[in-house]
Amino acid sequence: MSMKKPVWMDKENLYHIIFGTDTKCGKIYDVALMILITLSILVTFIESVPSLAFVFKTVLEVLEALMTVAFTFDYVARLYCARNPKQYAFSFFGIIDFLSTIPPYLVLLFPSARYMILLRTFRFIRVFRVFKLFTFINEGYLLMSSLRRSMNKILVYFIFVVILVICLGTLMYMVEGNRPGTQFTDLGTSVYYAIVTMTTVGYGDITPVTPLGRLFSAFVMLLGYTIIAIPTGIVTATFVDETNRKVEKGKCPRCGGQVGKKDRYCSHCGEKL
Amino acid sequence: MSMKKPVWMDKENLYHIIFGTDTKCGKIYDVALMILITLSILVTFIESVPSLAFVFKTVLEVLEALMTVAFTFDYVARLYCARNPKQYAFSFFGIIDFLSTIPPYLVLLFPSARYMILLRTFRFIRVFRVFKLFTFINEGYLLMSSLRRSMNKILVYFIFVVILVICLGTLMYMVEGNRPGTQFTDLGTSVYYAIVTMTTVGYGDITPVTPLGRLFSAFVMLLGYTIIAIPTGIVTATFVDETNRKVEKGKCPRCGGQVGKKDRYCSHCGEKL
Amino acid sequence: MSMKKPVWMDKENLYHIIFGTDTKCGKIYDVALMILITLSILVTFIESVPSLAFVFKTVLEVLEALMTVAFTFDYVARLYCARNPKQYAFSFFGIIDFLSTIPPYLVLLFPSARYMILLRTFRFIRVFRVFKLFTFINEGYLLMSSLRRSMNKILVYFIFVVILVICLGTLMYMVEGNRPGTQFTDLGTSVYYAIVTMTTVGYGDITPVTPLGRLFSAFVMLLGYTIIAIPTGIVTATFVDETNRKVEKGKCPRCGGQVGKKDRYCSHCGEKL
Amino acid sequence: MSMKKPVWMDKENLYHIIFGTDTKCGKIYDVALMILITLSILVTFIESVPSLAFVFKTVLEVLEALMTVAFTFDYVARLYCARNPKQYAFSFFGIIDFLSTIPPYLVLLFPSARYMILLRTFRFIRVFRVFKLFTFINEGYLLMSSLRRSMNKILVYFIFVVILVICLGTLMYMVEGNRPGTQFTDLGTSVYYAIVTMTTVGYGDITPVTPLGRLFSAFVMLLGYTIIAIPTGIVTATFVDETNRKVEKGKCPRCGGQVGKKDRYCSHCGEKL
Repeated sequence: MSMKKPVWMDKENLYHIIFGTDTKCGKIYDVALMILITLSILVTFIESVPSLAFVFKTVLEVLEALMTVAFTFDYVARLYCARNPKQYAFSFFGIIDFLSTIPPYLVLLFPSARYMILLRTFRFIRVFRVFKLFTFINEGYLLMSSLRRSMNKILVYFIFVVILVICLGTLMYMVEGNRPGTQFTDLGTSVYYAIVTMTTVGYGDITPVTPLGRLFSAFVMLLGYTIIAIPTGIVTATFVDETNRKVEKGKCPRCGGQVGKKDRYCSHCGEKL
Repeated sequence: MSMKKPVWMDKENLYHIIFGTDTKCGKIYDVALMILITLSILVTFIESVPSLAFVFKTVLEVLEALMTVAFTFDYVARLYCARNPKQYAFSFFGIIDFLSTIPPYLVLLFPSARYMILLRTFRFIRVFRVFKLFTFINEGYLLMSSLRRSMNKILVYFIFVVILVICLGTLMYMVEGNRPGTQFTDLGTSVYYAIVTMTTVGYGDITPVTPLGRLFSAFVMLLGYTIIAIPTGIVTATFVDETNRKVEKGKCPRCGGQVGKKDRYCSHCGEKL
Repeated sequence: MSMKKPVWMDKENLYHIIFGTDTKCGKIYDVALMILITLSILVTFIESVPSLAFVFKTVLEVLEALMTVAFTFDYVARLYCARNPKQYAFSFFGIIDFLSTIPPYLVLLFPSARYMILLRTFRFIRVFRVFKLFTFINEGYLLMSSLRRSMNKILVYFIFVVILVICLGTLMYMVEGNRPGTQFTDLGTSVYYAIVTMTTVGYGDITPVTPLGRLFSAFVMLLGYTIIAIPTGIVTATFVDETNRKVEKGKCPRCGGQVGKKDRYCSHCGEKL
Repeated sequence: MSMKKPVWMDKENLYHIIFGTDTKCGKIYDVALMILITLSILVTFIESVPSLAFVFKTVLEVLEALMTVAFTFDYVARLYCARNPKQYAFSFFGIIDFLSTIPPYLVLLFPSARYMILLRTFRFIRVFRVFKLFTFINEGYLLMSSLRRSMNKILVYFIFVVILVICLGTLMYMVEGNRPGTQFTDLGTSVYYAIVTMTTVGYGDITPVTPLGRLFSAFVMLLGYTIIAIPTGIVTATFVDETNRKVEKGKCPRCGGQVGKKDRYCSHCGEKL
């Protein structure tokens, strides 16, 4: 009965091809998309180099036009076959799909919005979707759940670092700022310097030259070198905890709660194991 | 009876608004303070850029005057309604509050103390107080207690690094210091270089040029890259220990076995907790 | 009977000398090889410095010729006495041995392939083989197995960082790229900058100069400074798990409780193990 | 009887003052020595700055002469009162004491050995001895024992990094070395660059400029950013293990072996606890 419609018009079938990764067609679709995305990123990169953009102008324009069509088609198909189009459109990947489809049209409408086209690079975020193909999606989820559990602690640390860096930047400005010809021209620059130093990036575009400034910078460096231990400690403790849990997981036959492998009674309902 | 006095004159009430975060008024007060602090930091930053300071001169001056009044009012009110004003005045936050209120007055008295005004930036430390609003103050305490427990070990490490850096700086001075036109002009500069290198900051303002100097620097880099593991190890071990403790605290009243805090039955003997 | 053949022609004997490390001859052979490899690396390094290469021309050429003969001899001998020559030839160390033997011959054939000779540096990988001499080869295996177990998680992290860096580089290009005389000349350079910044390398060859660019860079730095915690957390959790396993393996035959490998009595029921 | 001799001539008494930290005199001696060492370092630093050395010439020379006398006295006294003078003279601290006493005499004998005087900086290592005063010497021992236990693994890692860096430097030389005006002038410089990059130091004195060189460098950076996790993981796992052990330590009343707190039977001799 449904043979009258071609396969690609059947909503359910199309859904499995586009969103799913279980069928062979679904896998091929995802791999094709991944190649297309990588190609599209390459085109964007080459276009941004003036000399190359000039030489390969026509090739790049044709490729870009073809890919715009392909991405538009993909987005429309996803909207068409999604079980809940509205929910899809406002989901994380729905927005990414939209943002990676729309730039070329925006440039057609407003030629001055030249920089909008760079949003195409965000197409690369789509690569995350293609991960579903691989077994390590589980690893990704484990990572995510560990990070979410330590997020609060990391946030506290982050605010602490920001406040520290503002104070250190101010002190540095007081130390080096009144020297004639100083590179610490204003507070913003000094705080930028403090961040560059404490994160151990150290560009060297702004450097202290007075002995006191160098002494103080050395202190900031040693501080940054030491407190990097804190986020690492937070994340690692969570990972170790997660690993331990995974090892000792088991299920109570009565209440279904999580029990340790060595427990003799369920700690939730008292059932003998 | 106490209705005769306006609310804001009632010491107890004022205390809950200014120091507390439980009532609605207390929360509003804290949020208002946080916005004021952030604004004050922004004004200080803009003032430090000569071109901007010139353009927005009047606006900045008016804003600064208003904020000085507000912070003075806050400090006086805190002193007034604190249960033990003296204790408050010499507490950590009491000193921070004082230091972030006084600079504008100092500048009025001694116009040459231009740099004193930068102490206003320390107002930002007050932001820590506003943390009480949020749930993650607990996380902050946990972090603090972990760090305090590993402080001794980190101090030993710190002193070790300082001594190492002085020795490495001296060796570097002996290697590169006698080359004409060297950047390693004195021992202080060489030790500064050793710190910049070992903490992996690497400004590049001072760099070795002789083969032996580079070989030696490479060794310092690899050393710094490796011993950064030590503070991380210390902090992480404490965090892991803290996490284990939090999870595994409690004793079964019947068999004496270790039980989790949230367990309802002992996992060793099945006793109801 | 086999006394008629000289020792070094006996396949089995030769095998133990060249591949083994148990006999005295085997150890001497390995140490000699290690010295030869180090010498060969030194010659390659000195040859690459034009001034030194000119002065020591003859010495270097003679040394190189001698070492080429030695390495060729070693490779032929290995092929000759290996139990399964084909398997050896295509094993990891077989390929390394081939690659570190062939370059001088290639240069004789194609004098233009001057850079091929640098492949000699890969001889240094052979040093790994000589590790077999030392007791810490076990440590190496432990390290390897730990890393292999966390490889999947690290791969996910790596891809995540690559995508992040492309997005951050694009944003940086949009922020700083349209300033006249900018160093962010194209997307590739901007992504390179984002990598240099986020890994906290910070060469300083490309640096932001606009306030917005610096603000954004500061964010990238703080991000990089924080997410370095993730691979560390992954690897550490695996190491901790591995260490726990090593320590706590074993079961008591009477009560079934977990016992340490070196325990002589069960700590739960006192049973002799 | 022994009252005839003054206290400071009594060998046993002197030993407790100089080597011990239990008596009041011993503490005062150690603190005085620590102040002297710090002063001596300061003098060495100031002497190395030509302008300051010229201004404070006489003061520095007098201070240095006085300190030379003090250190000589200390060394002789230690030799005199040590229970086994020969053992002391060849112990770690004995050699450090000798090296930090001898330089001024060497300069008197050989005025050309100007740089030898810098060895005075190694006096700072003596500060470690003064640690005995403080409670955290235990922390230092714990740190040391943890590090010693993971030393083998770290050594394997170190050799691995050295080999990796030589290979990466060679590849980088092949990529960038044949460009006219390149900064990668020889193999040594390229390997130095690879170390600077992989340890995330990033001076910026040598930077890639070709697209391929940058792509390759980006890979080296990301690699360095990731494998820094390995030493951290090794050290942390040891620390966590050490912490766990410390928690679960107890002693068997019969055999004196280490038993866990929760063990009911000694795992060494089977004694009921």
